[in-house]
Amino acid sequence: MNKVIVLHQRPVGTPDLSDFKIIIEEVPSADDGEVLLKTRYVSVDPYLRGRMSDSESYIPPFELNKPLRSAIIAEVTDSNHTQFKVGDLVLGNLEWKEYQVSDGKSLQAIANHPAYLTAYLGVLGMTGLTAYLGLTKIGSPKPGETLVVSGAAGAVGSIAGQVGKLLGCRVVGLTGSDEKAHLIKSKFGFDEAINYKTTNDLGQAIKAACPDGVDIYFDNVGGKLSDSVLATINKHARIPLCGAISLYNSSVPELGPYIQPVLIKKSALIQGFIVGDFASEFPAAITQLTTWLTEGKLTYHETVYEGFEQVPQAFLGLFEGRNEGKMIVKV
Amino acid sequence: MNKVIVLHQRPVGTPDLSDFKIIIEEVPSADDGEVLLKTRYVSVDPYLRGRMSDSESYIPPFELNKPLRSAIIAEVTDSNHTQFKVGDLVLGNLEWKEYQVSDGKSLQAIANHPAYLTAYLGVLGMTGLTAYLGLTKIGSPKPGETLVVSGAAGAVGSIAGQVGKLLGCRVVGLTGSDEKAHLIKSKFGFDEAINYKTTNDLGQAIKAACPDGVDIYFDNVGGKLSDSVLATINKHARIPLCGAISLYNSSVPELGPYIQPVLIKKSALIQGFIVGDFASEFPAAITQLTTWLTEGKLTYHETVYEGFEQVPQAFLGLFEGRNEGKMIVKV
Repeated sequence: MNKVIVLHQRPVGTPDLSDFKIIIEEVPSADDGEVLLKTRYVSVDPYLRGRMSDSESYIPPFELNKPLRSAIIAEVTDSNHTQFKVGDLVLGNLEWKEYQVSDGKSLQAIANHPAYLTAYLGVLGMTGLTAYLGLTKIGSPKPGETLVVSGAAGAVGSIAGQVGKLLGCRVVGLTGSDEKAHLIKSKFGFDEAINYKTTNDLGQAIKAACPDGVDIYFDNVGGKLSDSVLATINKHARIPLCGAISLYNSSVPELGPYIQPVLIKKSALIQGFIVGDFASEFPAAITQLTTWLTEGKLTYHETVYEGFEQVPQAFLGLFEGRNEGKMIVKV
Repeated sequence: MNKVIVLHQRPVGTPDLSDFKIIIEEVPSADDGEVLLKTRYVSVDPYLRGRMSDSESYIPPFELNKPLRSAIIAEVTDSNHTQFKVGDLVLGNLEWKEYQVSDGKSLQAIANHPAYLTAYLGVLGMTGLTAYLGLTKIGSPKPGETLVVSGAAGAVGSIAGQVGKLLGCRVVGLTGSDEKAHLIKSKFGFDEAINYKTTNDLGQAIKAACPDGVDIYFDNVGGKLSDSVLATINKHARIPLCGAISLYNSSVPELGPYIQPVLIKKSALIQGFIVGDFASEFPAAITQLTTWLTEGKLTYHETVYEGFEQVPQAFLGLFEGRNEGKMIVKV
């Protein structure tokens, strides 16, 4: 009995449970040169929403009635592969299956370090690298500058804000609940937090929290929230842009004021990116993040759903703001 | 009798003649250390529209009932200044007056080279530097890439396109009349020209003219035109953005689809700039542009209005697309 989660239909607007289907297959067996993997932790991330649509993107869309796929930590339960033995833990972009076989080519062996195991899905994985490389390579933070982070309590934003603090910036986070606002100040050390859902005049709140203006806006939300930040950017502002979760579920393009005039007025830069753009920088970045983590200068938070069947719910929760830090599913 | 053009009222939406007023003053006289200047050529440029509004911008607004100001070539007609003698030609950011005095501090002496004199207001001045530096420093063109230029028959666009050709790009121009489309192909050597006003499906026309997609979009128009280009950008596209003439006259912010999703999808960069951001590069840039000009590899076009009183009309003509190349007024 092997549970498999497939894309039942392409979501229109906000995804819901009916877009997914759990099917039952036989547990496969590992042939020569293959390993059998048991899924231990599944990463769910906003970018997967893009792959559920049929439109062209930076990665091909998921196929209907085929398993979805994301970063997964799995355990080797059978091995006919020289490089892996039973009990090894691996990280890979794997299918949403309780059990699957792999030829091992795209698997990365990881240490079974209980304290940091799931960090490979977050701070030492895609989301941490996105935060660190987007902020440092595009944002070019300098001590004393003001950094605003949207989605500040999320997996990417919570790391971007902490890295900004480590590099000497004043850091202001935008987030969607009072609990998250408290979290980013108390746990992640942000200087200020704004709950954009309960703030009457967001533009004014940003101005008040950023008396010297905004030098860097690390944006993974987009939409009206970003328009409010743009109104307060300084000359030569830099905007690393890695996500637009507020726009992912629009079935028609959402409209906002054209941003060209403010970009000209402020000689500002917006650079869209995906973490893979900086692949050559991964080893150095992971070394830096690991150092900060072991020194206790960087911390992370996880929201953990339990049970393989909960993977779709966890994914949907991302769009309802149900995660603080990295959203993962423990199988 | 000295005619002076002042800002009579701040334009709302598209400027018109009633926003300007010609007043008569006495011709001033040059004190010790001063020169008396007679205006010979006046540059009018779209960016002046921004200074006519009261809102914060990268330069302070013009004051009501005070003379406007732009790049002007003038002749010294009286001098009590050791560095200038009668008959010298100078370039400066001067007031819209037939005659004015100056302490000489911000004046640049220029050679009286009849063939190139007005080039100091265009290809060797602000508009040429904007084109060359924006394209090379932000656009980073590589041979074989596709460059799309908006406002392609204008003072900036016509130079940006030619520089793109000199650097080995395929160059496609967007412009607003068949005459201009003809001009940019025949005189400026663009590979393709699209009249965006008469093209039924602009997105399709851009795709057809750019079979390998758009690597660089030199934008000085913004708005819907730019949305159409964004739909065809390639991965890692660069967008130098120096103007948004289509939006300058909006009295309320115009709305368009949020561009964050396409920037993420394509890992694309938009960099707003004004030419002054690259001031340290001016000498090298002027040397390169002068070389190309004297070698006959770079050409320019001017639309010349005659008579000092025509300065406001020439300025208004910019927003009606009445200029091919640089718009200037010969006094």
